[in-house]
Amino acid sequence: MSPLRVAFLGPLGSFSHQAAAESFCKLSADLQPHVSFQDAFAALQNKEVDYAVIPSENSTNGSVMQTLDLLADRDGLYKEVKVCGEYYLTVHHCLMVRKGTYPGGWADYDGSITKLYTHPQAWGQCEAFLTKYFKGIERQDVASTSKAAEIVSKETTERGAAIANRFAAEQHGTDILVENIEDRADNTTRFLIFRNVLDERTAQLKFEQPPTLEGEPALETTHKTLITFTIDHSSPGALANALLIFKAHGLNLTSINTRPSLKKPWQYIFFVECGRTPSDENKEAVHKALNDLRQVTETCRDLGTWKDQLSASNA
Amino acid sequence: MSPLRVAFLGPLGSFSHQAAAESFCKLSADLQPHVSFQDAFAALQNKEVDYAVIPSENSTNGSVMQTLDLLADRDGLYKEVKVCGEYYLTVHHCLMVRKGTYPGGWADYDGSITKLYTHPQAWGQCEAFLTKYFKGIERQDVASTSKAAEIVSKETTERGAAIANRFAAEQHGTDILVENIEDRADNTTRFLIFRNVLDERTAQLKFEQPPTLEGEPALETTHKTLITFTIDHSSPGALANALLIFKAHGLNLTSINTRPSLKKPWQYIFFVECGRTPSDENKEAVHKALNDLRQVTETCRDLGTWKDQLSASNA
Repeated sequence: MSPLRVAFLGPLGSFSHQAAAESFCKLSADLQPHVSFQDAFAALQNKEVDYAVIPSENSTNGSVMQTLDLLADRDGLYKEVKVCGEYYLTVHHCLMVRKGTYPGGWADYDGSITKLYTHPQAWGQCEAFLTKYFKGIERQDVASTSKAAEIVSKETTERGAAIANRFAAEQHGTDILVENIEDRADNTTRFLIFRNVLDERTAQLKFEQPPTLEGEPALETTHKTLITFTIDHSSPGALANALLIFKAHGLNLTSINTRPSLKKPWQYIFFVECGRTPSDENKEAVHKALNDLRQVTETCRDLGTWKDQLSASNA
Repeated sequence: MSPLRVAFLGPLGSFSHQAAAESFCKLSADLQPHVSFQDAFAALQNKEVDYAVIPSENSTNGSVMQTLDLLADRDGLYKEVKVCGEYYLTVHHCLMVRKGTYPGGWADYDGSITKLYTHPQAWGQCEAFLTKYFKGIERQDVASTSKAAEIVSKETTERGAAIANRFAAEQHGTDILVENIEDRADNTTRFLIFRNVLDERTAQLKFEQPPTLEGEPALETTHKTLITFTIDHSSPGALANALLIFKAHGLNLTSINTRPSLKKPWQYIFFVECGRTPSDENKEAVHKALNDLRQVTETCRDLGTWKDQLSASNA
């Protein structure tokens, strides 16, 4: 079989690239950068790739609105794209410079860096380190942390340093001066893994991480399901009635998000994630809940079921 | 009585400035620009101002995360700040230039504009107009639409144009070439109006717009309440149980938002807005719901009750 084609949000060396590489590390996979969320989704809908790995939520910054808007699929462009897995990546930032700039490493550093490069979000995530060692040094925003690594890898005149991940340092051949310069050790991004439900090739593949380490007793793995719906906002209690259905079928609500419907102001598309520990009794629970939801909602879509990697690894 | 002091999110001529001016137009008010959301909230907590007008949600882009994070008040900095009103502002963009550049107006325009300035969000909101008349013209992002108006008002060498609101044109003395260049006629931002609950001076003031036009029959005005809470995520059904309480007390859920708790990854602060049409029967409904919520939540805060301007004007 030819390698699996996996779309990630580029450029090379991005956190999405790292998430794709790690979640598909046990399979032969051809990882392909895509310049936008839309491009990755379109490639999957058109079966130009087998999977897409897209950031959906960060533990500090919250949900990624661009991903929710793609999932809302207001124009019906991505009808076959569904979630089939998730991957949690802990965000570690490193300070890096062009190869060979400081042969003795951080111990040898003489204060000569004059400019820092990174994605705007990363400054706030490394504030304590930057205040301690780089107070007053010029900061240049760039489009991605990987781009920052690329810029300093090619520097000839200035003494620049980038804040990016270890993966970007490997991609661009920079020297890491300091690792783990982030303020919060628990800053984690969840990536969702998508497939095209009409693609028979990917139907049977198990790319998820093993739920337990070898030799440990098996933990109960919960399954998560993502459902989107819209309701009649003029009907009082419509939202409460829809949410009640999950409880009635033993599905635990784990997260709720909303985005504007764009059909009428102040009407929303709801994104509900719910979980269950699979058993003979509840194997029809999602199916039954969807049937009931269709009675009380205007539109309702099942966006996929997958193994909860958080309950497996962190329980 | 000295004029009311009203904080808005600056600079002068911003949409927040316009919202503050329009919502306080019937009162003697001193409108004061604040450079950040935090500054405006801190000024209100410290009673340096009487009210603050802050954008909370846009009908196209969704909720403003910075406002939700302030309302979450994770560090207990703004304990006395609560919502007391709302104001809906329809977003109209204008194309404007330095005074006197085209004495004949748009009819006289000769295609000589070489550069456009606006806030990044505004490009996407005026795409049809820009594609038709300014395809390929250089675009410069600036920090606010008002800043764009200011820049072109002072131009001497280049032929620049700004995209900003009519209010900014008045503030900076620019000439409007074309009005209402936005793609969507219904693009609206909701501003929340905050007061300090310990400020006796503002306790009795009615600054809201009249619910009906003079001479029309009075419509029922609904009241909205904003409540935030956190739940024990390890307890299945905890979220459903909390949401059930609103229904049990006849409170209609109108919106739900979530933000990371920042205490533990993948745990959330929930923001629930609920509405009711006031009656003798339900005047204790919010109070009773809060009492019940405190039994099933970890933390629970009442962030204020105010008149729903949407049901009043658009019902």
